[in-house]
Amino acid sequence: MTQPRFVFQHLTSDGAARLGVISLKRGDIRTPAFMPVGTAGTVKAIMPEDVAATGADIILGNTYHLMLRPGADRMERLGGLHKFMDWSGPILTDSGGYQVMSLTDLRTMTEEGVTFASHIDGSRHLISPETSMKIQCQLGSDIIMAFDECTPYPATHEEAAKSMALSMRWAKRSRTAFDSHTGHAAQAALFGIQQGSMFEDLRQRSTDALTEIGFDGYAVGGLAVGEGHEEMLRVLDFSAPMLPQDRPRYLMGVGKPPDLVEAVARGIDMFDCVLPTRSARNGQAFTWRGPVNLKNARHRDDTRPLDADCASAASTRFSRAYLHHLIRCGEILGAMLLTQHNLRFYQDLMAAMRQHIQAQTFEAFRADFHERYNGGDIPPL
Amino acid sequence: MTQPRFVFQHLTSDGAARLGVISLKRGDIRTPAFMPVGTAGTVKAIMPEDVAATGADIILGNTYHLMLRPGADRMERLGGLHKFMDWSGPILTDSGGYQVMSLTDLRTMTEEGVTFASHIDGSRHLISPETSMKIQCQLGSDIIMAFDECTPYPATHEEAAKSMALSMRWAKRSRTAFDSHTGHAAQAALFGIQQGSMFEDLRQRSTDALTEIGFDGYAVGGLAVGEGHEEMLRVLDFSAPMLPQDRPRYLMGVGKPPDLVEAVARGIDMFDCVLPTRSARNGQAFTWRGPVNLKNARHRDDTRPLDADCASAASTRFSRAYLHHLIRCGEILGAMLLTQHNLRFYQDLMAAMRQHIQAQTFEAFRADFHERYNGGDIPPL
Repeated sequence: MTQPRFVFQHLTSDGAARLGVISLKRGDIRTPAFMPVGTAGTVKAIMPEDVAATGADIILGNTYHLMLRPGADRMERLGGLHKFMDWSGPILTDSGGYQVMSLTDLRTMTEEGVTFASHIDGSRHLISPETSMKIQCQLGSDIIMAFDECTPYPATHEEAAKSMALSMRWAKRSRTAFDSHTGHAAQAALFGIQQGSMFEDLRQRSTDALTEIGFDGYAVGGLAVGEGHEEMLRVLDFSAPMLPQDRPRYLMGVGKPPDLVEAVARGIDMFDCVLPTRSARNGQAFTWRGPVNLKNARHRDDTRPLDADCASAASTRFSRAYLHHLIRCGEILGAMLLTQHNLRFYQDLMAAMRQHIQAQTFEAFRADFHERYNGGDIPPL
Repeated sequence: MTQPRFVFQHLTSDGAARLGVISLKRGDIRTPAFMPVGTAGTVKAIMPEDVAATGADIILGNTYHLMLRPGADRMERLGGLHKFMDWSGPILTDSGGYQVMSLTDLRTMTEEGVTFASHIDGSRHLISPETSMKIQCQLGSDIIMAFDECTPYPATHEEAAKSMALSMRWAKRSRTAFDSHTGHAAQAALFGIQQGSMFEDLRQRSTDALTEIGFDGYAVGGLAVGEGHEEMLRVLDFSAPMLPQDRPRYLMGVGKPPDLVEAVARGIDMFDCVLPTRSARNGQAFTWRGPVNLKNARHRDDTRPLDADCASAASTRFSRAYLHHLIRCGEILGAMLLTQHNLRFYQDLMAAMRQHIQAQTFEAFRADFHERYNGGDIPPL
């Protein structure tokens, strides 16, 4: 069966929560979907087949990191990102804009794009809608993100309007540049990114501009930038429903497990976040009873599993005492086990949400989830 | 079929090289055998089932590290090292003596043992033949090593004689202490350690002392301490044949692939070394064409496999360019892939030696191995 370039099937809804499938050349993505982040050509501390085994249908690659190392021309010569990292499923790449602004110094933003100095060797680079599209095509990305400015938080209405307007002009240029790569454009999808900070009128103007250009999917950008859980949900309350019903909606850079549940409840279909993988390397595990810090001495003699309701190796084959020992000793195996566990937990959470949307029991699941997640870890032995 | 406490079958020889099987309660060890080092309750950067998948029948645990973290009493309460780290096969533990001397400050050696300050928190501990035996029993070790002093190199004949004599008194106390742990002594084996630095007469006196006490196996200690490959082989030439024919011979802390081949040629049956795992974390891979430093820029655009003759994931699924990228970026996956590769290479080397001893073609293998290993890596693309 030949896979289409891009099809989104919205299978059913339960309230505003949506169940769907995105079909791409390299495979299907069950939504709501969580995309593990593979910053520099690897989801950190885990083999690609083990990422797939957690239930992930798609991963994310960072254009900024990959354009610097190994470099976009080199990646193209080497056969693209999928082959490079041995991941045969879909990959979404970000545009590079967010990381240029957060990781580099000496950057200059103009109408043309952003000139910056590499955080690795100080070399000068330009990233613009045109170069971002070209690089994402060279990487061989399946879902390419428009180049935008993630509006800094907080922003005044005027600042947010100006930033959003620039992002919309860049969105148009991204669309044109993407379409000019006719070979890759026939194989991949292009998503636009809604901006407008915390302002409903700007989010609406941004949505109007994006839908007039036309994209395969739409992301909500400029959230998870320090505004907090409640404010993010307030903005999502009006931002998500504006976006076209028949296209996937992607909330960028989110988030904690309760964020995911609440965003799905507001109609979001896709997420990405470094939290499960980064936290793992710091000794923090996610469980159905909330986060667990395995560095804590309370786990030192605890023979019980990390999470009796998770089928990860960390929870089925090892004790909390062992995980604590590995984290305390700085052992790489600790990062490996918790990465696998956290990604498994995130995928289990997405699978549970999909099942409950299908069964029209999402509201009950949502309430149960929060009660249990906020109820705290099992008492110490 | 019930496994015996300890049986060594010397199946055949080819020259001085020996093929055998050591049977222990937890399984069989095909010899010549290489034991990956699991310092602190984990072979670093690899899952235990992946260690087994490389072909390893037994791993080594470090008493010094484990007595400090998680601690011997705690380990016993938690059910022992095998359960802690989910390794069901045999484990050999060292006595702690070597690392006490190499890793700690403020140590005092007396006839009783060594008092030292932990390199982690400065806490004071005593390690002696009696405490070492007790701790190794608490860990649940399958092959327990006598407590000894690894004679520093270089040493005068007088220094070496004095040090060896102390080790022999400690060997006797180790035997007595091990036998007093009647429960564990019925499940595990005890190995003695030959000392005597680079002196044949001292090696003989040490061997006489050890065989009079009686051990299940005999190690050659005090080598790989800076004397160099040629000097080590000169000492092995007389030290290995002294040891009882009907017992396994273990060369501690060795070594590079050519060291292993030459030691097997001299009648050694067992090895352990951190080299394959530590080198992996530094970006060095072992191949049939010698060591390869993947940090080197020559690999940047190299789409070829690391070692076309190795079935490791690093060699079959990824390019040198990708491995180079991971190592340059400091990615944990680089350490994971090279650890798996290096351990696989070491086990493949042991398996090849066993096959050639069986086939009585060890000498031809030995010559071919060195020619190829010293011939250098494939030319750059």
